[in-house]
Amino acid sequence: MKRRMILTAGATPAALGIAAPAIAQTRPKVSWRLTSSFPRNLDTLYGAANTFSKMVSDATDGDFTIRVFSPGEIVPALEAREATSKGFVESCFTASSYSIGTDPAFMFATVLLFGLNSRQQMAYLYELGGNDKLNRLLYQKHDVLCWPLISTGAQMGGWFRKEIRSVEDLKGLKFRIGGLAGHVFQRLGSVPQQIAAGDIYPSLERGTIDAAEWIGPYDDEKLGLYKVAPYYYYPGWWEGTGILSLIVNKQKYEELPPAYRSIVQTAAAATTSLGLARYDALNPQALKRLVAAGTQLRPFPQAVLDACFDETTKMHEEYSRADPVYAEIYREMATFRQDAYQWLQLSEYAFDSYQIRRLRR
Amino acid sequence: MKRRMILTAGATPAALGIAAPAIAQTRPKVSWRLTSSFPRNLDTLYGAANTFSKMVSDATDGDFTIRVFSPGEIVPALEAREATSKGFVESCFTASSYSIGTDPAFMFATVLLFGLNSRQQMAYLYELGGNDKLNRLLYQKHDVLCWPLISTGAQMGGWFRKEIRSVEDLKGLKFRIGGLAGHVFQRLGSVPQQIAAGDIYPSLERGTIDAAEWIGPYDDEKLGLYKVAPYYYYPGWWEGTGILSLIVNKQKYEELPPAYRSIVQTAAAATTSLGLARYDALNPQALKRLVAAGTQLRPFPQAVLDACFDETTKMHEEYSRADPVYAEIYREMATFRQDAYQWLQLSEYAFDSYQIRRLRR
Repeated sequence: MKRRMILTAGATPAALGIAAPAIAQTRPKVSWRLTSSFPRNLDTLYGAANTFSKMVSDATDGDFTIRVFSPGEIVPALEAREATSKGFVESCFTASSYSIGTDPAFMFATVLLFGLNSRQQMAYLYELGGNDKLNRLLYQKHDVLCWPLISTGAQMGGWFRKEIRSVEDLKGLKFRIGGLAGHVFQRLGSVPQQIAAGDIYPSLERGTIDAAEWIGPYDDEKLGLYKVAPYYYYPGWWEGTGILSLIVNKQKYEELPPAYRSIVQTAAAATTSLGLARYDALNPQALKRLVAAGTQLRPFPQAVLDACFDETTKMHEEYSRADPVYAEIYREMATFRQDAYQWLQLSEYAFDSYQIRRLRR
Repeated sequence: MKRRMILTAGATPAALGIAAPAIAQTRPKVSWRLTSSFPRNLDTLYGAANTFSKMVSDATDGDFTIRVFSPGEIVPALEAREATSKGFVESCFTASSYSIGTDPAFMFATVLLFGLNSRQQMAYLYELGGNDKLNRLLYQKHDVLCWPLISTGAQMGGWFRKEIRSVEDLKGLKFRIGGLAGHVFQRLGSVPQQIAAGDIYPSLERGTIDAAEWIGPYDDEKLGLYKVAPYYYYPGWWEGTGILSLIVNKQKYEELPPAYRSIVQTAAAATTSLGLARYDALNPQALKRLVAAGTQLRPFPQAVLDACFDETTKMHEEYSRADPVYAEIYREMATFRQDAYQWLQLSEYAFDSYQIRRLRR
C-alpha cells in the first residue's frame, strides 16, 4: 500500500534523494518464485517453465532469477493462480481454466470448446487483442496478469474401456474429465469426475471409472492408460489446443524495471513456440509405440460430435446471458473461428489433405 | 584472427591485466545493422524484423541496437545473405532459399517442397536438431548462423489467367515462380520466371506471364494481382510453410557477450511465434475481400498435384546423389514427415475436419 502511494506520486529513488548508482535502478537483483501446476515428470510441461526461467536468467546474466517449484512443494497444483493473486508467490504456471469455479471466463485463455486450434488461438490472443482484453477485464480484477507459456496442440479424446457407438453410450459413462467439458458431458448424461493424474490408472483398472482423458500420446503414455483401456478416441473436441499460462502477480510485475518486463514477455512468447515444437516432435513416435502396444484408435462418431457441439453452444449462450465479459470474449472468438476456418480450408488444410492421402501410398 | 588467438588462449581482459569494470564486459554498447530482403510495405515480413529489433533493444535498455534497412538501402534484396557472410553487415532477414544457387541445401531452412507444414518444420528445426545440423554442416561454411524469424504458414498457389485442368495445361505456362519449385515446373514443361515483386502486376496484365505466385491473401492483395488474373489456386504445395530467417555473421555473433547471444535467440523464437499469429489474424479478412472483389478460388486437380509430387521426389533424389549434406537433411525431413502426418490426421486434422464441416451449416 505504501509502495503504491510512492508510485502514484511518481517518486523515484533519485527524487527521494537516495544515492543509487544507475545500474542498481535498471539492473536490480530480483528473485521470483514460480509454482507449477504440472509435475516434474511431465518434461513437456514442467520443461516449459524451466525453459522460460533459463531464458530470463540468461538474458540478465543471472540478475533476474525465477525458481520453479513442483506442485505441492509450496502451493497445491490447483491453487497456483490464487496464490499468485494473493502475492504468496510472484508467478505460476498453470491452466487458467483451473479457475473457472471463480469465473467461467478464465476458460478462454486456455481453450474454447469446439473452438480455435493452436494457431488460431494464438492469433486471437496476441494479434486480435484477446489477451490484452482478458487481462483488462478479468485477470486485473484478481491482481494478476496472464500470457501463454506453452500450447499442447490438439489433444486426444482419451482412453475408453468400451467403444462409443452412439450418443446413448454417453449416458452413465463415468468419465475422468474436468472443467466446462465435464459440464457438457454431464448435460448428455455422463458422470464427469475430477481425479488427480496419479489416481487415474488405478481408477480405470478397477473400473471405478469407464474412461479418462489426459493430453496426447507422449504425456498419456507416461500414465500407462493403454494397459487398462484399449480404445483411444479422437479428436479431443474440447481441446483443439490447450494453452497453459504464465500468470504473474500484477503488482510484482509492475515493480520490475522495463527491461525485465520486456524479457518476461519475450521469453514467454519464445517458450510457447518451442514448447509446441517439442510436442510436435515427440507425439508421432509416442503414437507409434502406443499402437504397437495394442492401442485401438477410434474416431468419435459424427452424431456424438454433433450432440456435443450443440450442448456446448447452449452452454456458451447460458454463460453469455449471465456475464457480459464472457459474452464479449465468446462472441469475438466465435466470429474469428468462422472466418479463420474459411481461410484454413484453402491453406493448411488443403495442403495437409493432399499430404495425408499421398503419404499413405 | 588476432582475436581468435586470444580467445583460444582462454585469456580474459582481467587475466591480461586490463582494468575493465565488470559492466563493460557483460553489457557493452553494441550496434548492428540488419538488411531486410523484404520491403517496408510488407508490414507482415518487414514488421517481423522490427519486432525482433525492438525486443533486443528493450531487453538491453537500448545497449544492443539492431538497425533494420530496407532492400537496396545498403544491400540489394537477394544479396543479403552473401553480404552477411562477408561481414559487410552483421545480420540480415531473408529467405535462406535465395541462396540455392550457391548450395541447394539452403532450401531446407525455408521449406521442403511437399514437405512439412509450419509446426512440423519448427519441430524438425528446433526439437529434432535440424537447425543445429544445418548451422554445423552448411551455414558455418559460409561464415554465418541461421535461425527462424517468421513463418508464413501454408501459402497459396498463386494467380492464374486461365484455369489449370490437367498436367497438359502446365506445358508452356509462363509462371512467375522461383527456386526449386521453378525447377519442378520446368521439368513439367512450364517456363518459370523470376520477376521482382513490383514488376509482377504489369507482366501479368500485359500477358508477358500467365501466372504468378507470391504469398497469401494479405500480402497478395497489396500487389493487386486479383485485378488481372481471376483464378486463385491452392494449395501452394511448394510452400506448406515459408520460414524466413535471421542470418547473422558467425564471428560477430560469437563476439557478443553471452546474455546478448541468449537475447538474440529468445527474441528470434518469440518473433517467429508472433509473426505467424499475425498472418493467421490478417489472412482470413483479406481472403473475404478478395472473394468479394471477384476472385475465383480453384484447387489444383489431383493429377496435377501427383505429377508435381513425383517430379519433386525425383529432384530431391538427384540432389541427394550429388551432395551428402543434402541427402542427410532430406532423408531426416522425409522420415519425420511420414511419422508426423500419421499423428496429425488424428489430432489437428481430425479436429479441423469436424469444424470445417460443422461451421458450413
